[in-house]
Amino acid sequence: MPDNKVAMEKIVSLCKRRGFIFPSSEIYGGLGSCWDYGPVGIELKRNIKDAWWKSIVQERDDVVGIDTSIIMHPGVWEASGHVKGFTDPLVECKSCHLRWKASDMDGKACPQCGGELTEPRMFNLMFKTFMGPVEEEASTVYLRPETAQGMFVNLQNVLNTSRKKLPLGIAQIGKAFRNEITPGNFIFRTREFEQMELEYFVKPGTDEYWFDFWVKERFNWYINLGIRQENLRLRLHGKDELAHYARDCYDVEYLFPMGWSELEGIANRGDYDLTQHAQHSGKDLSYYDGDSNERYIPYVIEPSAGVDRSLLALLIDAYHEEEVEGETRVVMRLNPSIAPIKVAVLPLSRNKKLAPLAGGIYQQLCSSFMTCYDDSQSIGRRYRRQDEIGTPFCVTIDFQSLEDNQVTIRERDSLAQIRLPVEELDRTLRAKLKGESFDVSPLWATRQK
Amino acid sequence: MPDNKVAMEKIVSLCKRRGFIFPSSEIYGGLGSCWDYGPVGIELKRNIKDAWWKSIVQERDDVVGIDTSIIMHPGVWEASGHVKGFTDPLVECKSCHLRWKASDMDGKACPQCGGELTEPRMFNLMFKTFMGPVEEEASTVYLRPETAQGMFVNLQNVLNTSRKKLPLGIAQIGKAFRNEITPGNFIFRTREFEQMELEYFVKPGTDEYWFDFWVKERFNWYINLGIRQENLRLRLHGKDELAHYARDCYDVEYLFPMGWSELEGIANRGDYDLTQHAQHSGKDLSYYDGDSNERYIPYVIEPSAGVDRSLLALLIDAYHEEEVEGETRVVMRLNPSIAPIKVAVLPLSRNKKLAPLAGGIYQQLCSSFMTCYDDSQSIGRRYRRQDEIGTPFCVTIDFQSLEDNQVTIRERDSLAQIRLPVEELDRTLRAKLKGESFDVSPLWATRQK
Repeated sequence: MPDNKVAMEKIVSLCKRRGFIFPSSEIYGGLGSCWDYGPVGIELKRNIKDAWWKSIVQERDDVVGIDTSIIMHPGVWEASGHVKGFTDPLVECKSCHLRWKASDMDGKACPQCGGELTEPRMFNLMFKTFMGPVEEEASTVYLRPETAQGMFVNLQNVLNTSRKKLPLGIAQIGKAFRNEITPGNFIFRTREFEQMELEYFVKPGTDEYWFDFWVKERFNWYINLGIRQENLRLRLHGKDELAHYARDCYDVEYLFPMGWSELEGIANRGDYDLTQHAQHSGKDLSYYDGDSNERYIPYVIEPSAGVDRSLLALLIDAYHEEEVEGETRVVMRLNPSIAPIKVAVLPLSRNKKLAPLAGGIYQQLCSSFMTCYDDSQSIGRRYRRQDEIGTPFCVTIDFQSLEDNQVTIRERDSLAQIRLPVEELDRTLRAKLKGESFDVSPLWATRQK
Repeated sequence: MPDNKVAMEKIVSLCKRRGFIFPSSEIYGGLGSCWDYGPVGIELKRNIKDAWWKSIVQERDDVVGIDTSIIMHPGVWEASGHVKGFTDPLVECKSCHLRWKASDMDGKACPQCGGELTEPRMFNLMFKTFMGPVEEEASTVYLRPETAQGMFVNLQNVLNTSRKKLPLGIAQIGKAFRNEITPGNFIFRTREFEQMELEYFVKPGTDEYWFDFWVKERFNWYINLGIRQENLRLRLHGKDELAHYARDCYDVEYLFPMGWSELEGIANRGDYDLTQHAQHSGKDLSYYDGDSNERYIPYVIEPSAGVDRSLLALLIDAYHEEEVEGETRVVMRLNPSIAPIKVAVLPLSRNKKLAPLAGGIYQQLCSSFMTCYDDSQSIGRRYRRQDEIGTPFCVTIDFQSLEDNQVTIRERDSLAQIRLPVEELDRTLRAKLKGESFDVSPLWATRQK
């Protein structure tokens, strides 16, 4: 394990304890590799997805969003190569009929019963189901193993309706499903997962420029979210490991507890996908370029990121243990922009006199920020909880507040405590969350222990 | 068709033409009842979901969010009654083996081939698939037909980690799947759809109070989103139509082109779900109430809304045709808070002199608002497009702007045009989007034709 890293067990435990992530269907014993995001986890996930959408779709005039269905026409997966090619070799036990990944079983007998194993056979990783009332081949459909095909089959619709020209990106965030034989490492590899994918269509010949552009852009996105640069790297795929459709591919890798592993792949897919869909659908998927008076099949650059993996990397990178007054403090140093809860409103104790002021402050803040209110147990335990979920600011209301209408902001990272008038709270928190330097008004700023 | 209503065909056509909604996998001939949200549609959908999340989760201290997996342990659906009870009676043709809804076929022969039909048999509406490498009964799992069960099985985890007491709500937005025999009416009834569900857990005896509370709250939510009150109504379920688990149920209905139809159901489910899960899982799902020193199974009030239906109702309600200077103007009067694009930046013509100023304004606005830039075709056609996607404000840059650094805001609804300095743009649009009255500075305000 890299020595700057926390053990995965600590992350799994914190996630369960604080409401980031629970095992799915836990009261029924769980379901292999399925996880549920709890109250804190879903806010973190929403913030990551929103940050991606803002940087990719909202702030770019050359990218639009889309949201396509999980169940698509089966012809899509014929054309994409997933029906034939998206397979793993498995062996089956001749006695108990359990199946195993062939590459793990070389020359061994069944790990379950010791029985003899068959020769390897190909197993498709797509989940299949039946649409309509009849269970037969004609009604077989698949859960999409990637969101990308939704963009390829909609390119013409998007061009016709959006008044955009190439280069043009189409972006999507959504669930995908792969019947992995060996899921694992918490939420790193799961059978149900969420993707953030961009298909960026360009004129052939400009693809290498845009490939480089997106590799840099996407690497920097993780840094801007607060992941330390020394835990990130770019790895160029060797020609022998490139997927058949890819002309080039970089992985953005993160130093997970199990070693360097892929966060995102940025691939130059050339015209593979559109050509396949043109052939299989019989539709003309070429593009008329009015500037150069040419018609061509666009090339596509695909940055494909995992929501769950990004979230896991952010949790691992934010995890810190430190000594404070002889005790170990666990603190999640999440970038305030993605922290699940921005502000915790904490009356010093559960007291009828403090409740109206504290409640009023909560009501005022919660329409601007994701805010929580907590008046149970000691203030020390409540600070500890907020540290463990990464809340950047706690607002403490004490008995003096009733007299001077001032409250205390406690900062997660510096542990600094700053006292200020209630009417300055919204403006100050807004500035702090934007990362603006804190404008300490000399009239009221008093730094406390 | 109600006379205040647009025909569904006009909505479907506008959705396709302007990039709200496309038929899924259209280049392959489409896939029954599956739809894809285009660049404009996904922004509208995001805004609706965010508005729900803000009002239900962010602004309430007694509700937390969650995000559970689509594939859950099959025991969940045994306990919930979906494996046994979630069925429709079908008949099968003895010649061609197609199946039909029994209630449509009373005494008839097969509509496909004229063959004889079997007696009705029960058909389960859940999509089933296989998890893991072996396709057999033991590995059968289902795509969830509702998100609600994710909240019931996680109540204990949420209580243990969130430091909350009852009443406590758990909210989720996510996809659900039902193998409907007769989907239809555009995105009103589809096999893959998205839900916004709240399970609000309360002490028995307080359930009627909270049932009434949530019925009012949810009805008002649609009004606040801009749906006209005369097109909404509440309908109390008769005792004979209540689901077996429900003690009471109101539907929020909207006057769709096909008549009054359900947008959302608000049900008092009593302790049915938690009791079922306690029995099937063997886990104690009771709640210890420290205030009253009692232990009980909470009752649950469930407001369950459809994302796609809400979006369809908002589109229909916003659709207006009016005469402007002898031409028919189609305008979507969407509430600015949910409009897909808030601001369109439109240089008067595609001109190298206008581009730098217009581009700079786009760059400035797009980090604050969902903004689009369009410099193709005539300004009239571009206004028409923005009207049809419901953009509340267009910012027009003309040649005079290069001299006086002023631009024109054109308002979608009033068609008023207001000229103002570029540096006032962000502040003014922000105020207008919040619905604040427009602070017309007398120095520069000039109302144009």
